[in-house]
Amino acid sequence: MAAAAANGAGGGGGVPRPTNPMVTPLLTDLYQFTMAYAYWKAGKHLDRAVFDLYFRKNPFGGEFTIFGGLEECIRFIANFKLTDTEIIFLRSAMPTCEDGFFEYLSSIDCSDVAVYAIPEGSVVFPKVPLMIIEGPVAVIQLLETPFLSLVNYASLVTTNAARHRLVAGKPKNLLEFGLRRAQGPDGGISASRYCYMGGFDATSNVAAGRLFGIPIRGTHSHAFVSSFMGLDDIIDRTLASSDGSNKCEDFVSLVQNWLARIKDAGSLRGTFRETNLSELAAFTSYALAFPNSFLALVDTYDAAGIRLDSGDLAYLSVETRKFFRAIEEEFGFIGFGKMNITASNDLNEETIDALNKQGHEVDAFGIGTYLVTCYAQAALGCVFKLVEINKQPRIKLSEDVSIPCKKRCYRLFGKEGYPLVDIMTGEDEPAPKVGERLLCRHPFNESKRAYVVPQHVEELLKSRCMGYLDRMRPDHMRRLNPTPYKVSVSAKLYDFIHFLWLNEAPVGELQ
Amino acid sequence: MAAAAANGAGGGGGVPRPTNPMVTPLLTDLYQFTMAYAYWKAGKHLDRAVFDLYFRKNPFGGEFTIFGGLEECIRFIANFKLTDTEIIFLRSAMPTCEDGFFEYLSSIDCSDVAVYAIPEGSVVFPKVPLMIIEGPVAVIQLLETPFLSLVNYASLVTTNAARHRLVAGKPKNLLEFGLRRAQGPDGGISASRYCYMGGFDATSNVAAGRLFGIPIRGTHSHAFVSSFMGLDDIIDRTLASSDGSNKCEDFVSLVQNWLARIKDAGSLRGTFRETNLSELAAFTSYALAFPNSFLALVDTYDAAGIRLDSGDLAYLSVETRKFFRAIEEEFGFIGFGKMNITASNDLNEETIDALNKQGHEVDAFGIGTYLVTCYAQAALGCVFKLVEINKQPRIKLSEDVSIPCKKRCYRLFGKEGYPLVDIMTGEDEPAPKVGERLLCRHPFNESKRAYVVPQHVEELLKSRCMGYLDRMRPDHMRRLNPTPYKVSVSAKLYDFIHFLWLNEAPVGELQ
Repeated sequence: MAAAAANGAGGGGGVPRPTNPMVTPLLTDLYQFTMAYAYWKAGKHLDRAVFDLYFRKNPFGGEFTIFGGLEECIRFIANFKLTDTEIIFLRSAMPTCEDGFFEYLSSIDCSDVAVYAIPEGSVVFPKVPLMIIEGPVAVIQLLETPFLSLVNYASLVTTNAARHRLVAGKPKNLLEFGLRRAQGPDGGISASRYCYMGGFDATSNVAAGRLFGIPIRGTHSHAFVSSFMGLDDIIDRTLASSDGSNKCEDFVSLVQNWLARIKDAGSLRGTFRETNLSELAAFTSYALAFPNSFLALVDTYDAAGIRLDSGDLAYLSVETRKFFRAIEEEFGFIGFGKMNITASNDLNEETIDALNKQGHEVDAFGIGTYLVTCYAQAALGCVFKLVEINKQPRIKLSEDVSIPCKKRCYRLFGKEGYPLVDIMTGEDEPAPKVGERLLCRHPFNESKRAYVVPQHVEELLKSRCMGYLDRMRPDHMRRLNPTPYKVSVSAKLYDFIHFLWLNEAPVGELQ
Repeated sequence: MAAAAANGAGGGGGVPRPTNPMVTPLLTDLYQFTMAYAYWKAGKHLDRAVFDLYFRKNPFGGEFTIFGGLEECIRFIANFKLTDTEIIFLRSAMPTCEDGFFEYLSSIDCSDVAVYAIPEGSVVFPKVPLMIIEGPVAVIQLLETPFLSLVNYASLVTTNAARHRLVAGKPKNLLEFGLRRAQGPDGGISASRYCYMGGFDATSNVAAGRLFGIPIRGTHSHAFVSSFMGLDDIIDRTLASSDGSNKCEDFVSLVQNWLARIKDAGSLRGTFRETNLSELAAFTSYALAFPNSFLALVDTYDAAGIRLDSGDLAYLSVETRKFFRAIEEEFGFIGFGKMNITASNDLNEETIDALNKQGHEVDAFGIGTYLVTCYAQAALGCVFKLVEINKQPRIKLSEDVSIPCKKRCYRLFGKEGYPLVDIMTGEDEPAPKVGERLLCRHPFNESKRAYVVPQHVEELLKSRCMGYLDRMRPDHMRRLNPTPYKVSVSAKLYDFIHFLWLNEAPVGELQ
C-alpha cells in the first residue's frame, strides 16, 4: 500500500490526526533533529532514502507476530508539520544550528514520503519489513522514533491478545480489563484498541469504547459490596418487569423468600451456609439497578451468581455450574443452568492453559495486567534500518545484519492453502509465479534453502487481507514448541547480500 | 496534603489540565459508572467514603518504591467535569439507566473530594496509603481507575530509574533513550518524565524535554553513518573556530592529516587498522555540523570517539580511555584523556552492575527498553480500597486483607537519622511524639511488634520533603538481599483490625 501524504498543515487531505494529540513531530529522539541538521549542513538532506521497519524475533517464545499500529503511522505522516512554537523550542534546544535549517524544518511535510506496508492485523514474521518508508533522508529520519513508538507496543499487545484468544478458544468471551495497570493512560487506551484487533470481544475502558467503537463491559467491584451494611440500606424496593406489565413492590422480600426456598430445596440442601447480609444487600441493590444485566462479583465467599475473582477458578466454576443446573432442574427455570460464568484475577496465557487442562465451566475471561503490560515480554524490538540511499544499497553489519535494497516481499502458499514461506526479492526481480519452481534461500545461512512451487502468491506490502490467524498452519501458532515459519530471500538477492557483506566487512588482523 | 478541587468546567481554579488530553472522566472502567448508577438508584451516592490507594509489594525484588503520578491526579480532579458529548455517549452505553442519573452525572465535579497524599518522589512502602481519597462514594469510584492508571506506571518507572541511579552511582550521567520501545506514545513521555524524577540526567525525547523542561540529548544513529559513501560526499569543508577568529578552509584534509599523524605516533603505532572511509566521512560531516558537541557513534568497528553501542562495553571503554590518554600524552591536548565515553545497547540494572564488577571507563549510560518498559516487572499492583463509609470502617477479607479506617501515617526516625518504621494509626489517635516510647505492631502478625522511641516524626500524608533516597539506611536500598523496611500499625488500630476481622469472617463448616 502506498500512502502519499498531502501537505499537512490543516489535516492531511482529510486523514484524521493521531488519536493521541501528544503524537506530534516533537515526539522523537533529539538525534533525529541533530542528524537532520548534519544532513542539511552536508547538503544531503534531500537524498532519496529507503528504510525498512522490521523486527528480529517473535515475542512470547512464539513463532508469529501480529502487526498493529499502521493506521496511527499514516495519521501521523498525513498531518506531519512543525508548528511555529515547535520550531522556537527546537531553536532553543539546538542553539548552534544555522537559521536556514529552521527555515527548512518549517517547510517540510510528508508529501514526498511513500509508505508501503503489510495490512494491519496480518500475521508477520521476523526480518520481513512491516513497512518500507521512502523519501528525503532528513524527513524519514524524523519519522523513525514516532513510527517505532506507534508500531512496537501496538504489535506486541495485538500479538499477546491473539495468543490469549488461541489458548482460550473461539467460543469464549474475552474481556480486556487492563486500564488501571497499563503503562500510562494511552498504554491503556492502545491496549484496549489492539486487544480488540487481536481477537478480544470487549473492554472495560469507556474511553476506548467511545474512540474505537469497542463493546464495553463492566459490573461492580468489591468496594460496592463492602459499601453496604445490610438490607436496611435499600430504600426503594420496587422493581417493574421488563415489559412494564407487572411491578414487584418489595424485591428485597422476594429475594429473601427465594433464598429460603433454595435453602430448603431437596437437591440443594446443605449447599448453603450462612448468608453475609451486607453482600446480599449489595447484590440485591445491584439487581434493582440492572435487572436485565445482573452479574454479581463473588469473591472470598461462597460462589453464587457470578464473576469469580479469587480462589480455585476451575473448581469454583464447575461447582457454580452444578449449582445453576440444580436450580434449573429444581424450579424449572429454563436456561438457568447455562448462566454466564466470568472469571478474572491475574489471568494470563499460562493460567488459561492450566484451567483448560483441569477442566472448567468458565464462559468469559476478564484479563488485565498480564495482557496489557505484556508482562511475559514487555517490549518488541522493532528497528528502522537504512537499506538504500540514492539507489545505492546499504547494509548494516552488526550482531544482526540488515537485508539491503528496496525489496518486494511475497507470501507463498502451498497445496493445502497454508502459507509456506515469505520471500524477499530485489525491487526489479519478477514476482514469483503460481506453479513455477522457485529457489528460496535463508538470507545468511548458505545451507538453508528450498525449492517451492507456490499454489498462490500474495504480495505482502500491498495485500489487504485479514483473518490471517485462521489461515496459518496450526503448528506455527501453537504455544508449545511452535514450528518456525520460514522467511527467505531470492537467489539473486542472496548473492547480492553476500557480495555487499564481504565488500563492507573490514578484514581483521590477528595480533 | 489536602487538595480540594474547585468546580472544574473551565480549568479547576487555575490547576492545569492533565498533560495527556486523553485523560478525561471517561478514561475509566465501565463498572465505575454502573456502580455509580447502582449507588444513585439506592440513594447511597452521597455516602461519605474513604478509599486508600496503596500497593502490596515492592517491585523488582527490592525493598523500596518511589511514589510518582500525584501531580497528574491532582490535575485530573481539579478539572473533573463530564461534557455533554460524554454524557450522550454514556447514555448510549447504559441504555437502561434513568434520566435522573445522567442529570446527576452532568452536575458532579470534585469540589467535595479531599486528597491526602505523600509527596511525589518520596520513598514509600507496601500497605501505607500513598493517597487517601475522601468524598461522595459515587464520585470517588469514578476516580479509581484514572488514579490507578496515573500512579501505577509512574511509580513503577520512577522506582526503576532510581534503582538504575543507585547501581550506576552518583557521578555517572544517566540518559533515558526509551521512547521507541515504550508502551505507546505517552508510555514514552511518562517514562522520560518519571525517569528524570527517579534520578536520570536527561532524555532523548524532545516532546518530554519541551513539556517538562528535562535536558535533552542526542547525537546520531547508524543510519547516518551508513548514509555516507566516502569523503567525496562532503561538499562544504570549511569550519570556523568557535570564537570566529579563525577559519579552517578544508576540515576534511585536516582530519586526514591528523589521522596520518596519529597512525604514525610512536605510542599509538599498531593501534590503527584500516579506516572505513564512509564512516570517516560521516563522522567528519557530523563534526562540521556540531563542532562544539561532537560525539561519534561507534559500533562494530574499532572504538574511537565515542558512544559505544555494541560489543564488550567494559573492555572497549577501558581501551578507548587508554587511547584518549595516549593522544593527550602524545600531542599534549590537555583534557583529551578525560573525554566522554557513553555506553548504550540494551543496558539495565544487571548489566551496569556487571560492568561495575568488571571495571569500566564509561562516563554516561544511555538506557532504553529495559528502563522504560520496566522489563523486569512490567506492572505495579496499586489498589484502591474502601476503608470507611459514613464513618463506618470497612475491611476487605481476601488473600490480602485491607487495613480499615481513615488513618494517619507517620515515619519514625532513629538516632542515626534513618527512618526506622512507618506507623499507621486511627484518625483520632494522638500523633507519635519524639522521645516517647511507642508500640509498633505488624498489622496482621501478632508476634511481630517492637517498641520505638522516635527521635524525629514526620506525618507522611502531609509532609513535603524530597531527597528521600539519601536519607534511607543503605541496606534497605541495596540490590542484593535488601532488608525490608518495617511498616506497622498502632496497638489501638491493631486491636480494632482484629476485632473487625473476626466479626466479618464467616465461620466455615467442615463437611
